[in-house]
Formats: sequence, structure tokens, C-alpha cells
Amino acid sequence: MTQPQQTKISPIERVGFIGLGAMGEPMARSLLRAGFHVVACVHRSRSAVERLVAERGSSGSFSEEPNPAAVARRTDAVIVCVPDAPQVEDALFGRDGASEGLGGDGAGIVVDMSTISPIASQSFAKRLNEGGFAFVDAPVSGGPARASTGDLTIMTGASDDDFARVEPLLRAMGTPFHLGGVGMGETVKLVNQIIISSVMIADCEALAFAKRAGANLDQVRKVLATATASNYVLESWLPKMALAGTFEGGFALDLLRKDLAASLDAARTMKLPMPLSGLAYQLYTARSGEGDGALDYSAIAKSYESHGRE
Amino acid sequence: MTQPQQTKISPIERVGFIGLGAMGEPMARSLLRAGFHVVACVHRSRSAVERLVAERGSSGSFSEEPNPAAVARRTDAVIVCVPDAPQVEDALFGRDGASEGLGGDGAGIVVDMSTISPIASQSFAKRLNEGGFAFVDAPVSGGPARASTGDLTIMTGASDDDFARVEPLLRAMGTPFHLGGVGMGETVKLVNQIIISSVMIADCEALAFAKRAGANLDQVRKVLATATASNYVLESWLPKMALAGTFEGGFALDLLRKDLAASLDAARTMKLPMPLSGLAYQLYTARSGEGDGALDYSAIAKSYESHGRE
Repeated sequence: MTQPQQTKISPIERVGFIGLGAMGEPMARSLLRAGFHVVACVHRSRSAVERLVAERGSSGSFSEEPNPAAVARRTDAVIVCVPDAPQVEDALFGRDGASEGLGGDGAGIVVDMSTISPIASQSFAKRLNEGGFAFVDAPVSGGPARASTGDLTIMTGASDDDFARVEPLLRAMGTPFHLGGVGMGETVKLVNQIIISSVMIADCEALAFAKRAGANLDQVRKVLATATASNYVLESWLPKMALAGTFEGGFALDLLRKDLAASLDAARTMKLPMPLSGLAYQLYTARSGEGDGALDYSAIAKSYESHGRE
Repeated sequence: MTQPQQTKISPIERVGFIGLGAMGEPMARSLLRAGFHVVACVHRSRSAVERLVAERGSSGSFSEEPNPAAVARRTDAVIVCVPDAPQVEDALFGRDGASEGLGGDGAGIVVDMSTISPIASQSFAKRLNEGGFAFVDAPVSGGPARASTGDLTIMTGASDDDFARVEPLLRAMGTPFHLGGVGMGETVKLVNQIIISSVMIADCEALAFAKRAGANLDQVRKVLATATASNYVLESWLPKMALAGTFEGGFALDLLRKDLAASLDAARTMKLPMPLSGLAYQLYTARSGEGDGALDYSAIAKSYESHGRE
């Protein structure tokens, strides 16, 4: 079934990129900066494409193709960075999907950097393997800020050979960790999401308590950074979002709800109770029901604002 | 009501210490190391006293008195470091309590380093002020490990003058932050406890998920330390406790339950809902009901252990 290994040895120079969203655009820019030739799929966000076209001369090059199949035909590896499993499936196996173009000029490897269920990753890997192609799951942590600086944490599930092939590509966007076979990148990403979803709520709950008790929030954050409560969300995320009075440009609350749902679904099959994550899911869902699903997930702070007024 | 300020100007040299427990003993040792003369109250833990007596020659000196009143008579400031408000009240206002000995040779200042409700702190301060004595609340974060190295975070509520007087004393034990008037140290300490109680559960829930999904926990922790989930409990507390297979010598789960109860009570009067802390309280209470209240609060990990077995 698998193609001879020697057809895959040449280093990756031309990279397809499907999904130039809030994360994909800065990640594609990191690849350009590192000298890769990036071929994007015609994207509904014309502004992202135009920004990347404007920068194409910097060191790498940038071009467009009309669909994922055409992108795959022109490249050595195809990165997918979309919201959820149905969009990954469509990009790979839909009409004019990448799987139709793999193995032409390209070397037939897909790197899925979306956050989806590890079970879905393994099923996509199986379908591609049957066609003789490789699949790597490589979801990221760090948000748009660390995507822009090429400083993402990249959690990778892949065979040793496949990891070695895509590592230079991943290094252009951040620090890749090889965590096991296909699906293990997504598993560890969900572990990250389980933690951040409750940490964000705990931080917001605690800051609401501090504010209502008359404490100076800047001082509180400074003290807590040296205490046992110290956490990245409090020190680095909230100051750019809720504490700066904005919820734009972070990580959409509805995407976190999707990740929590995938975690709770996986926990269900493992018969593992996750009471804190279950409550976090409900609290974010209530916030989304108020119309805030597209805001950064620190918008959960709004749930603590209006209480206690006489 | 207040005594003339000039009687209080001389620097503190002799320090009373009431409460040589898991935190108090290493904190008293830090004072000895810094050259203070420590006078302890005869303590039910003879072993702590004997260890401190053995070290009395190092730089400071160590002696004992039979009750808090006698301690107060022999010292310039009295530190109290006990489990909860009733014990503080007993140490200060009970039979032979410190308030009976304050203002003799001493300069009449009490530094309460216990974690108690800010409302209780303010009431103790009021009673002492009426006798012409000063009160400072200065609860700490860092656990026995950072108490031993004199590296605690100290959250202080005090008048400017009182903070200036006790600052050299506090610096011997860690880094003091002056956060406002009496009660504000305890308020910010509760903010810390609100966060750590949920962060600990989120970490344990996520690690249980990772373990059941077959991930390597050491690798997971290493990756998450670079990701948005990064937090002190995961990186520094759990490796010494639950992940090292022990629950001894940390922070007792029942003491965290007491702090959460104080937080939820304060939130009740502020009409602030704290759904995540409410659930955390219930989960710790269930674990305490299993007989684990005296263990480090990472014992909550045990609640995730037995599930999912066929």
C-alpha cells in the first residue's frame, strides 16, 4: 500500500496552505519568512491573501491555486489549518480535495494543524495511508500573538520518518514536540484545552472577587505572578484581552467549546468523569448563548460583571 | 486611643512566634537565620521546638515562654501562624492571650500570617487598636518548600507606618507586598486560593485524560510548560506531590476547604456567583469525606484514578 520510501526523501520546499484564518495567515507568513514557497488555496478572506501576496518578495514566494487538489499537485506537503473535523474532511476528501492532487509532483504528505478529535485524525490518516500518502497531526498552542512571532508550541503525532520530514517546516512556525503516533498531537492539544478552559474561568472568577473587594487588579496580578496561583492565562493572555477591554483577535470562545466537546466526548468513551470541564463547557455555552461565541474566550469575564449591584 | 507613635519607632529585634507548624517552623528558622531573637510559645509539637533550640546558636537566638501573653511581654512584635480564625482569636484574646502582654517591654504589634477571612482580620485589628496596639495581616503563598528557603510571597494589609515597621521582619521570610489596609492581605490570599483550587483540579483532570489516552505524562508536562496551559501547580507543585506518588508535606486539603469556604462566604455577602469555586469546594469535600483531608490537596488526583476500569 505504502509508496517506496525513497520517493519521499527530498526536503520539502513547496508548501500548500489551506486555511488562512486568524492562525493560518501568520503561520503562512512564518513559512515565507523562512524561505518556503507557499501555495495557498483561493481563500474567502481576500485580505489575508492580498497581505501575503504583498510580502511574497521578502524571502520565500507566494502563489494561489483554485482548490486543494491543485494546491497538492504543486507542492511537497499540504498544511491544513481549519476550524474543525468536517472542514478538514472537506479539504482532504471533498470535491477537488487535496487527496486528488497528492502524489503528482508532490511527495504526498498532509500536515493537519487544526484542533480536532484524535479519533478523527486517525480516521483521516487511515484513508490517506490507503492511497499511499502520509498524515501528521500537528495542532498548536499560543494564539495569534505567538503565531505572528513564529513561536508556537506544536504538538505532533506522526511516525518517526514523517516527523523528520516535516520538522523543518514546523520549526519555521514554532517548537515542534513529537509526542507519539498519529492522534497523539491532538490528544495533548485537548489536554491543553481542558486546562486553559478552567484556568480562564478560575482567573476571571478570582479577579471579579478581588475587584468587588476593592483590590487593585494590577497589583493583584503582580503578586499572584510570584505565588502558587501563577499561570500563563493570567499573566500573558488576560492583559491583552479582557483586562485591556477588548475581546478581538484572541481565541474564539465557540472554538474552545468545540475543543471541550471533543474532550468530553473522548472522556465519555474512556469512562473518565471530568466534572470541572463539564461545568466549564456549560458556562462557556451560556456565554455563547448571550451572543459572545465569536469573541475571545476571556469574554467569560462578562459573566461576572453585572452581579452584586444593588 | 492609639499610643504615641514614638514608642513604636525602635526597630524590631525580638519576635514572638505562635504556631510552629508545617509553615511556622521553617518561617521561624528564616527569622533565626536573619539574626532575629525568636521567642516561641510552648508548642504541642515538641519536635519543632527541639529542632529550633538545636539551631539557636547559628545567628539569632531562640527561647520559649509558656503562653502568648508571656511571649508578647518579651518581644517587640508577635507573629501568629495558626490554622484558622478561632485559633488566632484564642492566641490573641484567650486566657493568657498575647493582648494581655502587649505594650509591656514590647511595642505592641501583632502580625497575623494565618490565612483567615478578611472580615475576621478587621475585627481582630479593631479590638487591638482599641487597646492601643497595631495589627497587620500577612498571609503567605509558597508552601513548606518556599517557607524553608525564605522565599514566600507575603500578602500584607497594614497602615503605611505599620508596614514599614514589620517589613524587615517579613523580608527575612520572603517578599512582602503591601496591598492596602488591614484585611487586604487576606483578600488577595483568598484570590490566590480561589485560583489554585480550580487549577489543581483542572491539571489533575487533564493529566488523567492524558494518561488514559496513553500519553507520556513527563512529556505532556514538558510540552504544556511552553503552551497556554502553563501554570505553577502543574510545573512545580504536582511533581513534588501527586506525580511523585506522595501527598505528605504540602498543603492540607482541609485547609484549602477552609479557605474556599471563607471565599464563598465573602462572595455570598458581595452577591458574586462563583460556580467553578463552588464545584471545586464540593469535589474537595468529597475527597475529604474519603478520609484524605490531611493530605496535600493534590490528593484530588485520587478522584480520577479508579474510573474507566472494565
